[in-house]
Amino acid sequence: MATERIYNFAAGPAVLPVPALEEAQRDLLALPGVGMSVLEISHRSKTFEAIIGECEANVRKLGRIPEDYHVLFLPGGATLQFSMVPMNLLPAGAWADYIVTGTWSDKAVKEATKVGAVNVAFTNKAENFVRVPKREEIKLTPGAAYIHIATNETIQGVEFHKLPDFGDAVVVADTSSHMFSRPLEVAKYGVLYAGAQKNLGPAGVALVIIRDDLVKKAAQNRAYAGLPVMLQYGTHVQEKSLYNTPPAFAIYVMNLAMKWLIGIGGLEAIEKINERKAGKLYAEIDRTGYYKGHAAKDSRSRMNVTFRLPKEELEEKFIKEAKAAGMDGLKGHRSVGGLRASIYNAFPEAGVDTLVAFMKEFEKKNG
Amino acid sequence: MATERIYNFAAGPAVLPVPALEEAQRDLLALPGVGMSVLEISHRSKTFEAIIGECEANVRKLGRIPEDYHVLFLPGGATLQFSMVPMNLLPAGAWADYIVTGTWSDKAVKEATKVGAVNVAFTNKAENFVRVPKREEIKLTPGAAYIHIATNETIQGVEFHKLPDFGDAVVVADTSSHMFSRPLEVAKYGVLYAGAQKNLGPAGVALVIIRDDLVKKAAQNRAYAGLPVMLQYGTHVQEKSLYNTPPAFAIYVMNLAMKWLIGIGGLEAIEKINERKAGKLYAEIDRTGYYKGHAAKDSRSRMNVTFRLPKEELEEKFIKEAKAAGMDGLKGHRSVGGLRASIYNAFPEAGVDTLVAFMKEFEKKNG
Repeated sequence: MATERIYNFAAGPAVLPVPALEEAQRDLLALPGVGMSVLEISHRSKTFEAIIGECEANVRKLGRIPEDYHVLFLPGGATLQFSMVPMNLLPAGAWADYIVTGTWSDKAVKEATKVGAVNVAFTNKAENFVRVPKREEIKLTPGAAYIHIATNETIQGVEFHKLPDFGDAVVVADTSSHMFSRPLEVAKYGVLYAGAQKNLGPAGVALVIIRDDLVKKAAQNRAYAGLPVMLQYGTHVQEKSLYNTPPAFAIYVMNLAMKWLIGIGGLEAIEKINERKAGKLYAEIDRTGYYKGHAAKDSRSRMNVTFRLPKEELEEKFIKEAKAAGMDGLKGHRSVGGLRASIYNAFPEAGVDTLVAFMKEFEKKNG
Repeated sequence: MATERIYNFAAGPAVLPVPALEEAQRDLLALPGVGMSVLEISHRSKTFEAIIGECEANVRKLGRIPEDYHVLFLPGGATLQFSMVPMNLLPAGAWADYIVTGTWSDKAVKEATKVGAVNVAFTNKAENFVRVPKREEIKLTPGAAYIHIATNETIQGVEFHKLPDFGDAVVVADTSSHMFSRPLEVAKYGVLYAGAQKNLGPAGVALVIIRDDLVKKAAQNRAYAGLPVMLQYGTHVQEKSLYNTPPAFAIYVMNLAMKWLIGIGGLEAIEKINERKAGKLYAEIDRTGYYKGHAAKDSRSRMNVTFRLPKEELEEKFIKEAKAAGMDGLKGHRSVGGLRASIYNAFPEAGVDTLVAFMKEFEKKNG
């Protein structure tokens, strides 16, 4: 069994909890008492119904999700949600407010614009997405169908540490890269969606949490009946994510990751760990000025730590030498450059310590 | 390691080759030389690029796919293709011919009708989809944008053993439940699509093979730019199925299944095995008249063998006793009733022999 594992700082797909991987490995040829691999069982079987039911229950437990919210497991990633959200929630004649703080919320605008009217309520693309806005910088339009926000931008590493106060407006949030990294108040949102492959599980499934009245309202729009059945939220609500064959294995592994998260104490416990991990890394970034953080201090992501070195050649050298020392995935996205350390829930604190020690040493040698 | 495996006759997700499962299991915590699980690696990494590249190469090799066809790995299953096909290939003012021979092609019509004009060129819903039509029964309309056909209907167990002669028309085929069960002439099709979870791999990915000129033609339609980026074939062609995070693990396991299929001799070899397996089962069905096949003899599927017993109570008894004897998944779909033995590529011949022996014994005791 090849288990020499390295430290994986990738932004997603990303590191998973080892106990989840070990259970998946143990049972890969046959689930106990079932005699078939989870990769082979019918999605209509009692076994799979129990798996998806348990995953939903664990998500509900972790997120303290109110009864009037549906929990869906959908294909196509967060990117397909960029389209599903307006197709379902932005009827003809209506408009939506979009807050743009990075690459992903910018992409969300592009897809929404194909469907209906979009008001960009805030963007700081011109300043290279280095921060999240203050509430008073966000120019909402009264009567908007919803407000769209990406609460953590994976590429830039900027995070809303608190949802701005939007009163009673319907808030739709792309929470892909920090979902369940800290407690959240689901009741403040109309829709939360997240590609699982960052902080929830493996690639292939998106978690969508949607308030029941929005599903019902969507179905009343004249255009709704003409949407592809796979893009109607109502389909997946009615069929409990089993309208067609779901990404079964991704849901199974996500459930194992959720069990692990509950086991270590849930969202309050993981938040403390995540604060500590990110704190160590940002402290090192700030120690001498050799490293420069991309995000403004008050907007720094606890999940995606983006930073630069004095010169590009040094960045390349850093990445190469870090890789040789057992740390992979540190290259920043090409649109930001530099380095990015993604330190999701399952990323071990020892890996952060190793990186911090490496950074000190690298500065000493190359400073 | 729990490896007591039973015989899995499920219609999909379905049985996978044991060597594929064993390799996935061996490497689940860390791919050799990579130090990360395939569930954790970036889809932008060289490792994953090699995996998806190898999967494409193996699909091309098995299917002898001409150069001017693209091989795509997409989310949403065949059901999302029901929508993507007309959204891309059925422009305003055009129409398409649909051949309806079972539940799935019927669903395809429903989705296409939301997008544009559909001519049902054949349907035998009234006779409960017991056969495929003769060529002369199919009423094509000259000038149709394409002809849609489901070459094997999973639920009814009816199969086109040869594609009818459609001349130069663009043929779009849902081949989900018998893809790569026999050699096929890709050049006779414009688009072939298949949810992987029946005969290709695990759930979570659909294989789409599409001719280049159709992708280009789609992009010229006025409505194309307004389609969700995830539903434009051009997106996935341009980005080689990596526009967003793909269902990486499903592609990885599919590749292992393709390697297995190449290893046993490819499509010519598997066709012989599939003929023999289905032949044994249909011979037993025909032996005394106790069992009744659902499909007309010339339309019998080699993949999904549907049959009934003299009474519903006996069917229930059969399913229950078969399950106790280590054979699962034999219950027919509720719309057809009776029994269905899905015997895909990876289904072992010994399992067919076991079922045949069980059928003989059951008839003796209950006949």
